[in-house]
Amino acid sequence: MGRDTRTSATRRGFLKGGLAAGGAVAAGAAAAKSNGEDVITELMPWNQELGPGVDAAPYGVPSQYEANVVRRNVEWLTADPVSSVNFTPIHELDGIITPNGLCFERHHAGAAIIDPAKHRLMIHGMVEKELVFTMEDLKRFPRENHIYFCECAANTGMEWRGAQLNGCQYTHGMIHNLNYTGIPLRLLLEEAGVKTEGKWLLAEGADAAAMTRSIPMEKALDDCMVAFKMNGEALRVEQGYPLRLVVPGWEGNMWIKWLRRLEVGDKPWHHREETSKYTDLMADGEARRFTYEMDAKSVITNPSPQAPLTHGAGPTVLTGIAWSGRGTIPRVDVSIDGGKTWNQARMSGPSLPKSMHRFYYEFEWDGKPLLLQSRAIDSTGYVQPTKDQLRAVRGLNSIYHNNGIQTWLVKENGEAENVEVS
Amino acid sequence: MGRDTRTSATRRGFLKGGLAAGGAVAAGAAAAKSNGEDVITELMPWNQELGPGVDAAPYGVPSQYEANVVRRNVEWLTADPVSSVNFTPIHELDGIITPNGLCFERHHAGAAIIDPAKHRLMIHGMVEKELVFTMEDLKRFPRENHIYFCECAANTGMEWRGAQLNGCQYTHGMIHNLNYTGIPLRLLLEEAGVKTEGKWLLAEGADAAAMTRSIPMEKALDDCMVAFKMNGEALRVEQGYPLRLVVPGWEGNMWIKWLRRLEVGDKPWHHREETSKYTDLMADGEARRFTYEMDAKSVITNPSPQAPLTHGAGPTVLTGIAWSGRGTIPRVDVSIDGGKTWNQARMSGPSLPKSMHRFYYEFEWDGKPLLLQSRAIDSTGYVQPTKDQLRAVRGLNSIYHNNGIQTWLVKENGEAENVEVS
Repeated sequence: MGRDTRTSATRRGFLKGGLAAGGAVAAGAAAAKSNGEDVITELMPWNQELGPGVDAAPYGVPSQYEANVVRRNVEWLTADPVSSVNFTPIHELDGIITPNGLCFERHHAGAAIIDPAKHRLMIHGMVEKELVFTMEDLKRFPRENHIYFCECAANTGMEWRGAQLNGCQYTHGMIHNLNYTGIPLRLLLEEAGVKTEGKWLLAEGADAAAMTRSIPMEKALDDCMVAFKMNGEALRVEQGYPLRLVVPGWEGNMWIKWLRRLEVGDKPWHHREETSKYTDLMADGEARRFTYEMDAKSVITNPSPQAPLTHGAGPTVLTGIAWSGRGTIPRVDVSIDGGKTWNQARMSGPSLPKSMHRFYYEFEWDGKPLLLQSRAIDSTGYVQPTKDQLRAVRGLNSIYHNNGIQTWLVKENGEAENVEVS
Repeated sequence: MGRDTRTSATRRGFLKGGLAAGGAVAAGAAAAKSNGEDVITELMPWNQELGPGVDAAPYGVPSQYEANVVRRNVEWLTADPVSSVNFTPIHELDGIITPNGLCFERHHAGAAIIDPAKHRLMIHGMVEKELVFTMEDLKRFPRENHIYFCECAANTGMEWRGAQLNGCQYTHGMIHNLNYTGIPLRLLLEEAGVKTEGKWLLAEGADAAAMTRSIPMEKALDDCMVAFKMNGEALRVEQGYPLRLVVPGWEGNMWIKWLRRLEVGDKPWHHREETSKYTDLMADGEARRFTYEMDAKSVITNPSPQAPLTHGAGPTVLTGIAWSGRGTIPRVDVSIDGGKTWNQARMSGPSLPKSMHRFYYEFEWDGKPLLLQSRAIDSTGYVQPTKDQLRAVRGLNSIYHNNGIQTWLVKENGEAENVEVS
């Protein structure tokens, strides 16, 4: 541990400056002495007064000083919050795990509030034996644990026609990364006995939208899970409590929440949410078919429009996230000059397939404007494209699957903007 | 994925029974048809009514049906909740990540509520240059991400003299496992310049208890971190917001919360919380010295006294957690007959050093009483001892560092009790 951290050669110079600034801000609150006694001369209330006891909050909540760290929606984006989206505040987060309270939501008829004692999962169609499971039945099957990202296919969708939304929460915040516990879907299908002609699976949610998606049997038997825990505890209502389908690396819309029905068939169903929606129109009006996998992608979360640089020139930490539906992210490159030159970022944290990765790039900011970009390279060798490269292939009719390189302009005053460079 | 799951040979037999039971419980709510139409014949309210929209909860909370999944304290254990402990409900959790709202708390003067803008961290003592950092200063240093367990030295402490507390939440719930983001402590110490004679570090908290612990410099320069995020978001108040020391693999009391002061010295300080407390007395009244590392340990979380078996005989999933302060847990053994015979458990989930591991053991319960035990073997080859083996070496004066094998008696009716076997 600690060995993947490079110390900046200019660190000592920074600290000298940092200390001076700190001393000024502190206004005498901290004065160093080395006599072994208490050296913070101005005592704070919290050094003297008893705080809340262990009976204060049976289920804990964040500090009052973090009240701005919340999911946010964009009111003009959709007509009604029950068929809408809110966004993970990725500019406020670090590491690779998304806390359960901050996972983006995308609903089509609001979040179903389900009594788990009354919930059922059924498997039917081209199977030897139709089955209905209670939650207790399911908890008698072998479970697995995996950390996976879930990204909405529409993440970054507003940016196809140019820079639109000023903040990575809105441009890239339809993603979360969680430790799931659940049953390999394969085990449930084996129990039902899939008939030879059963090549596709329809998954349906118990919400009022009855969301349905078709999934190839090969994927269903590979790494899909029927999950009931996220980050150790029960799924949250807005993430499909008590049961959700986990479809690793594939678009979030297929991760059916409030899962109640699995039907085995011999062809895809072509339901509404996989034809008129969640399909990309090419420039000629033809639709791309079966665009399930999420391509490698990255974004710089700090600095960014919602997280400006406030410390002026000098040592600066840049960080961001990267992921691929096809494997791991062994490498991310960062540019501070709009893609003219690239620097290899430092990865830190567990590197797991189809999971979020965290990268850092530490540099000495000269105080001049920056054009920040990141590009992910995944374990298949795929390199994240520029937005213009994507547009050249896909045209401008798309909403989904925009994994183009994002650019932030950081101005001399440290404020950042969503911009495009050619 | 899916390849570490063994399918029970008796699964199909179970499901037949499970379905019959499910059908009875469901009382007509679910009837299978295979005509491709909606097959859950009795519609539930959530299939028809719109649920909450995306503006309902900017910071999400658990389902109303999970209201019993909370931290709990034991009122008779301590005189006042400001100097007390509550326990993680490990019997309600799965996977390896502990959700932030459920991490056990141990305070000595309540949880300090700190304004991060006014918080300072100072380094002084045997250093070339005394330093004071603001939170913003610290965020200009390189960061790392690691998943580590934190276990209170007193976890399982009540059990030295025999089975006391009826539930793994109380016997083993002073543990959590989180993705930390922070600065390697080494980088901050290098910045200050530790003098040659500086062999120990004193860490002090900003709470009213001014908790202090001495840490060998070798450990401080190895893998300690000054963390400001847990599971992606800011530390929770009760976990040291805005800054806590992370001392991987070592007892939780050393992980100083609300960290405000680091003093470099040439010997340990022998303060109150490392002499009269957090020290084990041997049978002869002598104290063990520097008992920092947490030895390999495991516990079965389900079934357990708070989580009885409710489904009767047949296929049964047993699960639990294991960890070691010295590395990973490549193997856990499980006994269902009080330690007479052992079966290798199935590990599932990321295996990371000084992190919690999850194990499962699936078996066919014959409906007769069970004596459940688990024993962890860590990557150094160390085998978790029985409680009697520990007592033979350490006597009965100890409170801390009880990593003995736990036994649960599961009775014919599925209820479980904390028992001892010899």
